[in-house]
Amino acid sequence: MAIGSDDLPRLAPVKGYALGVACAGIKQQGRRDVVIMQPQAGSTVAAVFTRNAFCAAPVTIAKANLNATSPVALLVNTGNANAGTGEQGIADAQACCAAVAELMACDASEVLPFSTGVIGEPLPVERIKQALPAAQADLAEDNWESAAWGILTTDTRPKGSSRSVRVGDQDLTITGISKGSGMIRPDMATMLAYVATDAAIAPDDLQQLVSDCSDLSFNRITVDGDTSTNDACVLTATGASGISLSPADPHWGEFREAMEAVFVELAQAIIKDGEGVTKFVSIQVDGGNDAAECLAVAYTVAHSPLVKTALFASDANWGRILAAVGRAGVQDLDVDAIRIWLGDVLIAERGGRAAAYTEEQGAAAIAGEEVLIRIDLARGECSETVWTTDLSHEYIKINAEYRT
Amino acid sequence: MAIGSDDLPRLAPVKGYALGVACAGIKQQGRRDVVIMQPQAGSTVAAVFTRNAFCAAPVTIAKANLNATSPVALLVNTGNANAGTGEQGIADAQACCAAVAELMACDASEVLPFSTGVIGEPLPVERIKQALPAAQADLAEDNWESAAWGILTTDTRPKGSSRSVRVGDQDLTITGISKGSGMIRPDMATMLAYVATDAAIAPDDLQQLVSDCSDLSFNRITVDGDTSTNDACVLTATGASGISLSPADPHWGEFREAMEAVFVELAQAIIKDGEGVTKFVSIQVDGGNDAAECLAVAYTVAHSPLVKTALFASDANWGRILAAVGRAGVQDLDVDAIRIWLGDVLIAERGGRAAAYTEEQGAAAIAGEEVLIRIDLARGECSETVWTTDLSHEYIKINAEYRT
Repeated sequence: MAIGSDDLPRLAPVKGYALGVACAGIKQQGRRDVVIMQPQAGSTVAAVFTRNAFCAAPVTIAKANLNATSPVALLVNTGNANAGTGEQGIADAQACCAAVAELMACDASEVLPFSTGVIGEPLPVERIKQALPAAQADLAEDNWESAAWGILTTDTRPKGSSRSVRVGDQDLTITGISKGSGMIRPDMATMLAYVATDAAIAPDDLQQLVSDCSDLSFNRITVDGDTSTNDACVLTATGASGISLSPADPHWGEFREAMEAVFVELAQAIIKDGEGVTKFVSIQVDGGNDAAECLAVAYTVAHSPLVKTALFASDANWGRILAAVGRAGVQDLDVDAIRIWLGDVLIAERGGRAAAYTEEQGAAAIAGEEVLIRIDLARGECSETVWTTDLSHEYIKINAEYRT
Repeated sequence: MAIGSDDLPRLAPVKGYALGVACAGIKQQGRRDVVIMQPQAGSTVAAVFTRNAFCAAPVTIAKANLNATSPVALLVNTGNANAGTGEQGIADAQACCAAVAELMACDASEVLPFSTGVIGEPLPVERIKQALPAAQADLAEDNWESAAWGILTTDTRPKGSSRSVRVGDQDLTITGISKGSGMIRPDMATMLAYVATDAAIAPDDLQQLVSDCSDLSFNRITVDGDTSTNDACVLTATGASGISLSPADPHWGEFREAMEAVFVELAQAIIKDGEGVTKFVSIQVDGGNDAAECLAVAYTVAHSPLVKTALFASDANWGRILAAVGRAGVQDLDVDAIRIWLGDVLIAERGGRAAAYTEEQGAAAIAGEEVLIRIDLARGECSETVWTTDLSHEYIKINAEYRT
């Protein structure tokens, strides 16, 4: 069950960034489950990782290697998260890096490992090793779509996004893929994203860019800091276009906008493929004093099981939304000034149902696959949006039956 | 669907506290939906109310009246919450108080109103008024069981608790009833509780007692401050036993313990009657530096939809519990020192599955209706427990279909 189009957009190759895919049979025979990505020499790589105190072995290694070296290769496996695996997990992640290093003639510390799948089972290192030569032989710049398939777990479809930005007489390319079977919040459904551009960007600028864009995309489908043990988002700038960009550049604004659009599209694709999702819900909070209070309200509404089940039932239940706003912990709320819309329909004002509101209007506003809940706190100029899903029977079924 | 016994324990009458019940047909003909409670003159009454910024009209009135006067009567109606009803809601709650005041020959400000049920619909004041004489005629001290039925909404069974405490050659009685169709968290399923004792207790001591006992019971089945628009818990000390108690008294400790036991039993009864509940889950966090971090961990685990669905599936999924602990926001967690038990079975240590753990042990520990998850943070002396439910298909069904 997923909403919106199943079609993957065309993913333009990024000069200097090759991807190779293979089948290691980690969880299922014949399934693409190993991906190698190879940024060309001289590329800049930046990343953000899970903030979960229990981070998985590959996250520990990838962070350390990224700090110490310039990565030559990224290795992703699905089917096994190598999480909750203790010291053996660290050794296994390092063994995989060493095997890639041997193939690519680099040092093991120049390989970043990523894993997603079942938790607490030993990583089948030998099976992964045996698949590496095939993944290496498959390396090609026009291989994004296959890699998008190769990083999936319980996802029902691949996720990708591509943009180009005109700079002078040349087009810069930004392409990315993501996985994550979005759910109530992406607690444990590991979110992975790999984005590359052929612009040249300095390390500090790139780190700022990946942090900012993640914050406005992947961190808007989760709770402040809530992450799985394996989450990672990697942004690579290969520089193969020959064009350098920095925030001081006149083209930076347009480039950053395109980058953010790619991130947002990848993040929204996760929600639209959410577990048991029947609705894509945008929650926009306007009129707050600052981002923190807008987000507090937005997340409280987004996480309310009562709001989510009402959305599943296509029930325009303004009372449940109002009560969620009321318990978001915002100080000195003027509850009489708050207004709430479903799409364009004003449903609540003055602490109750809007005077002109009819159930027919509400039913129409909530009937579709995409729903907008808009809340005006009427006390400031700040506005924030988060995205979420409804809560359905299917969600319970998937998570009661899937053994993470 | 509910777990544990359906039998209401024997509810001993409390001298000086009478209860009367009637059928007003607010939502359903023939259902007991109006309750009057009458503490004798000279009683002390204390209460805690919802902290939701959108509090319902009766809460506004009850708070104001309790501040200003010594209550002569409490009026409860079910079927309609009189919430999200704006100014009309305030007028309606006051009209009900005035009607009770006329019957009881007191001032309207000496009546505390409570409502629970559908949100956003006008309160059917006339129907309630017409039922008041029958409720008054029914007033009796041995009427707790009928009142326990009279305050229910989607609850599947009445909830009550009773204790006696020996003081000298006399027995003090504590009896209480509660309602609340506990759910993931009692967001909007209004929690109401009424407890009375025949001890005489000074107002400040009584207020402290109701705050402390609520904190260790009803606030352990909810999130820091999360409440519906209508929640209330009222504790009355009639003094009819002729025995005065204060914290300086040697019997106070025993009395307070009995009071806390009544509160905890009433709170746990709400969870056991939770919407779609198939398991009663205690989450005990030991070894924290303070209550705040123990509760942060306990609530993060308790609210994780992934942990809850695993519980529903009787899946001893230590990985999901571990990940929830890791994202609870506790600073500088030593993840390698943390240990997690299911009942008596050590399931996780050193950041992964416990060495001696077998799936058979886990399956046995999670098979029953009551499950204990115990987490040792191994960094301090503090311990806290919260209670919750699993997350089942039935929960979705109830909340997608019930129009609050």
